[in-house]
Amino acid sequence: MRVGVLTGGGDCPGLNAVIRGAVRKGVQEYAYEFVGYRDGWRGPLENDTVPLGIPAVRGILPRGGTILGSSRTNPLKAENGIRRIKDNLAKAEVDALIVIGGEDTLGVAARLHDEYGVNCVGVPKTIDNDLSATDYTFGFDTAVGIATEAIDRLHTTAESHMRVLVVEVMGRHAGWIALHSGLAGGANVILIPEQRFDVSQVCEWVTSRFRATYAPIVVVAEGAAPQDGDAVLKDGSLDSFGHVRLSGVGEWLANEIERRTGKEARTTVLGHVQRGGTPSAFDRWLATRFGLHAIDAVRDGDFGRMVALKGTDIVRVPIAEATAKLKTVDPELYAEVGVFFG
Amino acid sequence: MRVGVLTGGGDCPGLNAVIRGAVRKGVQEYAYEFVGYRDGWRGPLENDTVPLGIPAVRGILPRGGTILGSSRTNPLKAENGIRRIKDNLAKAEVDALIVIGGEDTLGVAARLHDEYGVNCVGVPKTIDNDLSATDYTFGFDTAVGIATEAIDRLHTTAESHMRVLVVEVMGRHAGWIALHSGLAGGANVILIPEQRFDVSQVCEWVTSRFRATYAPIVVVAEGAAPQDGDAVLKDGSLDSFGHVRLSGVGEWLANEIERRTGKEARTTVLGHVQRGGTPSAFDRWLATRFGLHAIDAVRDGDFGRMVALKGTDIVRVPIAEATAKLKTVDPELYAEVGVFFG
Amino acid sequence: MRVGVLTGGGDCPGLNAVIRGAVRKGVQEYAYEFVGYRDGWRGPLENDTVPLGIPAVRGILPRGGTILGSSRTNPLKAENGIRRIKDNLAKAEVDALIVIGGEDTLGVAARLHDEYGVNCVGVPKTIDNDLSATDYTFGFDTAVGIATEAIDRLHTTAESHMRVLVVEVMGRHAGWIALHSGLAGGANVILIPEQRFDVSQVCEWVTSRFRATYAPIVVVAEGAAPQDGDAVLKDGSLDSFGHVRLSGVGEWLANEIERRTGKEARTTVLGHVQRGGTPSAFDRWLATRFGLHAIDAVRDGDFGRMVALKGTDIVRVPIAEATAKLKTVDPELYAEVGVFFG
Amino acid sequence: MRVGVLTGGGDCPGLNAVIRGAVRKGVQEYAYEFVGYRDGWRGPLENDTVPLGIPAVRGILPRGGTILGSSRTNPLKAENGIRRIKDNLAKAEVDALIVIGGEDTLGVAARLHDEYGVNCVGVPKTIDNDLSATDYTFGFDTAVGIATEAIDRLHTTAESHMRVLVVEVMGRHAGWIALHSGLAGGANVILIPEQRFDVSQVCEWVTSRFRATYAPIVVVAEGAAPQDGDAVLKDGSLDSFGHVRLSGVGEWLANEIERRTGKEARTTVLGHVQRGGTPSAFDRWLATRFGLHAIDAVRDGDFGRMVALKGTDIVRVPIAEATAKLKTVDPELYAEVGVFFG
Repeated sequence: MRVGVLTGGGDCPGLNAVIRGAVRKGVQEYAYEFVGYRDGWRGPLENDTVPLGIPAVRGILPRGGTILGSSRTNPLKAENGIRRIKDNLAKAEVDALIVIGGEDTLGVAARLHDEYGVNCVGVPKTIDNDLSATDYTFGFDTAVGIATEAIDRLHTTAESHMRVLVVEVMGRHAGWIALHSGLAGGANVILIPEQRFDVSQVCEWVTSRFRATYAPIVVVAEGAAPQDGDAVLKDGSLDSFGHVRLSGVGEWLANEIERRTGKEARTTVLGHVQRGGTPSAFDRWLATRFGLHAIDAVRDGDFGRMVALKGTDIVRVPIAEATAKLKTVDPELYAEVGVFFG
Repeated sequence: MRVGVLTGGGDCPGLNAVIRGAVRKGVQEYAYEFVGYRDGWRGPLENDTVPLGIPAVRGILPRGGTILGSSRTNPLKAENGIRRIKDNLAKAEVDALIVIGGEDTLGVAARLHDEYGVNCVGVPKTIDNDLSATDYTFGFDTAVGIATEAIDRLHTTAESHMRVLVVEVMGRHAGWIALHSGLAGGANVILIPEQRFDVSQVCEWVTSRFRATYAPIVVVAEGAAPQDGDAVLKDGSLDSFGHVRLSGVGEWLANEIERRTGKEARTTVLGHVQRGGTPSAFDRWLATRFGLHAIDAVRDGDFGRMVALKGTDIVRVPIAEATAKLKTVDPELYAEVGVFFG
Repeated sequence: MRVGVLTGGGDCPGLNAVIRGAVRKGVQEYAYEFVGYRDGWRGPLENDTVPLGIPAVRGILPRGGTILGSSRTNPLKAENGIRRIKDNLAKAEVDALIVIGGEDTLGVAARLHDEYGVNCVGVPKTIDNDLSATDYTFGFDTAVGIATEAIDRLHTTAESHMRVLVVEVMGRHAGWIALHSGLAGGANVILIPEQRFDVSQVCEWVTSRFRATYAPIVVVAEGAAPQDGDAVLKDGSLDSFGHVRLSGVGEWLANEIERRTGKEARTTVLGHVQRGGTPSAFDRWLATRFGLHAIDAVRDGDFGRMVALKGTDIVRVPIAEATAKLKTVDPELYAEVGVFFG
Repeated sequence: MRVGVLTGGGDCPGLNAVIRGAVRKGVQEYAYEFVGYRDGWRGPLENDTVPLGIPAVRGILPRGGTILGSSRTNPLKAENGIRRIKDNLAKAEVDALIVIGGEDTLGVAARLHDEYGVNCVGVPKTIDNDLSATDYTFGFDTAVGIATEAIDRLHTTAESHMRVLVVEVMGRHAGWIALHSGLAGGANVILIPEQRFDVSQVCEWVTSRFRATYAPIVVVAEGAAPQDGDAVLKDGSLDSFGHVRLSGVGEWLANEIERRTGKEARTTVLGHVQRGGTPSAFDRWLATRFGLHAIDAVRDGDFGRMVALKGTDIVRVPIAEATAKLKTVDPELYAEVGVFFG
């Protein structure tokens, strides 16, 4: 049995732990061979491989990033992309493919399996924790930990200078990182993409916090937007690759707070720091178990499926179903956390 | 409504987050009053209280330990202990009691409720994560994180000197901390109380690891014991309070490994470092939600119950049932992790 | 003897350690009384004080910020500012004043002492480490540690995606934080305010790094500027207090790199995270010793002087002299570090 | 020019940074070739080498331990040891040798240079910071940081349970780690090898601390000893290599405190955790500069010398002189810190 492995999309602490888990168990217990594909779907598309075995996975558990590299290459947009992948896999005598990625990457895996009969097993990866069908994705806990530590540090600055500090964290479509790190960091306002925020309400919370003689911390997900006036968030400029630049809701909000409350406000944008570096113990545990269970799914011939966390168990769900719906913050949970606002 | 709060047993990062969560929501949303009892059951037994309100819980979220203090005072062993508690609560006009503790502390709460009709709500606390009925207890993630970081550090020393390093972690009856930190830290052997270990097997793993030109790390739970010869683990000496001293399975095992393999072995006993200091983001999230849900149980008059984590939900279970059985490591899970041994 | 204490300017991890050191030794060994002044020079200007004694300094050693608060209030700009301070100190029967602050704050102390005979002792504080007369200032080591950890984390993201990552760190006039964290973090380019940078050279380093199959990290001090075209760095807009907004050299540079090299580039601005939170062990040691020696200077009647670090010794230097010249990065030292560029 | 490099004695965070600094500058600026010797003096003694160049030093800056391995092999005790090393270096056409090590390792380098004319340059390494002629050695700051973080964590446990916590840290002959981490961690008693301690005095400090309603932390260097009764510290048993086991002053002291004060006391022995893992930013800076300056000494033909830190400068001193005297804690400095005891 020859098993291919690839990692697609944005990087996430724990990717290496998944790879190591699958390879260690595959080689030792099932005597499988492995082929590493470089840079996500670009690897099988262009037949770009690296040797993958016990030596390659030594010492990678605590390392962030992915030894296989990653990319956002979408074979659905390449001419005959899916077919070329199928052919390349066949030529390389790869019997099964472990696909570690988010919605886009797994979507390709689902089509490869459903339409072309390629033996795919999925492993969910999204630092934003917004994939349904799994309680948590690895990398999320690390990101929340980094953001929480930053918020902890900002409290002292906020209080020494009686300033408002706005912290912009990751989360384009789902506010999980903002919600968890905001609660854990003792933020006074948490704003998420799931619910448009009212700037006046934010300013009231800010003001009431100052009355209690403490300086407020506002945590805002990068994808959060005000109820009106969101046009101001659209920067409109393009980067050198033609992508529209995000406008920076954090910076915008700090300006609004200054203007409306007369209090000094500063912004910190945590950015890529949140997704780099060594994974937390929780993420190493989860990612390793995903790897171990993915190779078991291969052994069981249980293809078209994705490993997922349910409580403390690793289960298998159809890939297609798993990526069908974004997992967003439930309004009830947001309300629960709201008791700490202001 | 007047609500008493106490924390019993060994301390655990996250206790203050529970207290803060309950008080913030109780005061703000339900206009409850609070009474803090000092040092676990000693508080209501001797009517030793501290004021508890919004000012008392300010800034305590990131702080380890418990602002209420703790003790192992067992009212079941005090003369008329339970009755005195009931009377003291009545005199202080306390309508409900939130009891944060482990098996022993919650056992008293169960009896107080079941036999004396005291309005108790339980919050599970055990750093060892060995309470059934909840997926995780707070403090556990922090302890695992600290142990994992220590193991990370020990790898370099192990390899620079080609020594065996034995790390003794917490876990008297359940090996959860050893299992999670050992896996996350990339240990080569993990020994847990649930399965007596075979020293020859351990030495084989150690030796095979050296053959792969790496130095081994052995993680052992303090409650783990060898298949035979465990007599050597009993030190027999008493401390000044008459408790038998633990013998130190780590030190014993390092000696055995040196003797049998001829390789130098060193021991690190992490000890209390694992249970102190600021809680991880995961534990702050879990503990805060336990606090929020405990006060909701009080509001609902849902007494004799304990909050618990199931997947990502906080649920309620009968206190008595929850503490009936120790949650130990499943042999199947231990076998799953065993792929990394040697 | 009554001793006043104040902290002025931007906050810095270690301020509380200085206060604690001075108060502990002053009370215990010399039986002095203390008066805490709030918010830097605003305190003595408006006679705004807080009680300061052993209870007030308990547990503050590991806490960032300052229990006395801070401000940038400049009494030289207030009507009769210096005279009012002198009078208020006299009315409060304050015999000596310990002034903890940077260039501006200490400049006032020098004038108060030299022109008005007020008994001032200075303690140097600048997170940028740019005060001459002292080898290091406290807070700097903490800031460097935080920036280094962030750079460590960014490496994995840089390499997984083969992107350029630009990290903007503190340092308006001196590049110490950039230099130390850049070297410690293994950055491939470090840009400091002391030497205008050549964007083409930066792009060459970036390109050569990619050829070595690694992704580059560029660390840039907020005050660094290109050799020409620096006009683009001036944003021109004003915040709500009328301050000109800094333009963000990091963002500007990332754009230039993208445009010129065709490689994706991302920016992380660490901001206030660098100056908050618990001080490093080094900074706690240094700040505590500054506090102990400041109170000794008071006891010795050695006024108009500032404590400073020379090697491992704490010495005393004239305040005026100490702040006369900015301590910038020596070109030779910058060249020494340059061996790692590219 | 061919340059050999070796690392001897106990490992220390920063060894890899020294190697990298020397190799990067040597290859890039001076076009030198390098030979890595394995396991300290065993390498040149047995002609055991590894290739050393730019690829070998990539990515090692943040890694603890040493890529060259280490040992305590003493060529002075091997038959014709020094002569064999001289011959092996000649055969391998090694023109100069960079020796990174402590007192013992550098002592051999001094003799090799002085008596046999071998071109040695020394780099001081001792985690205990007890080498004279340098203000600090790398690794020390990392060890102090780890110990301080542990003490921070133990405070909460100490206070929640009102227990005495004894923390045993490294330092056989010098108390630098105890002194710095004890001060930085806010310990209530610090005991160092340089001054025999009086157990009654320790117990008084412990008791007085409890009266102030806080629980005490006692930091003790592993080499500290009581004024009398030190016999009890000698365990007498031998490990499998015939070394006398250290008795554990921490454990002994905790017992004495319990016995004499009636308060519960617990011990934490930090052990090897202090010397493993990634170096602090301070140590990366210092170690890298040592490497850069060591290769400059080679280029200058300045042999028989050791690089050292004086203030913020790297200087060169004779190896022999540098190791002649142990750098111990000055009684005056110990007294300065003593203001925080009790």
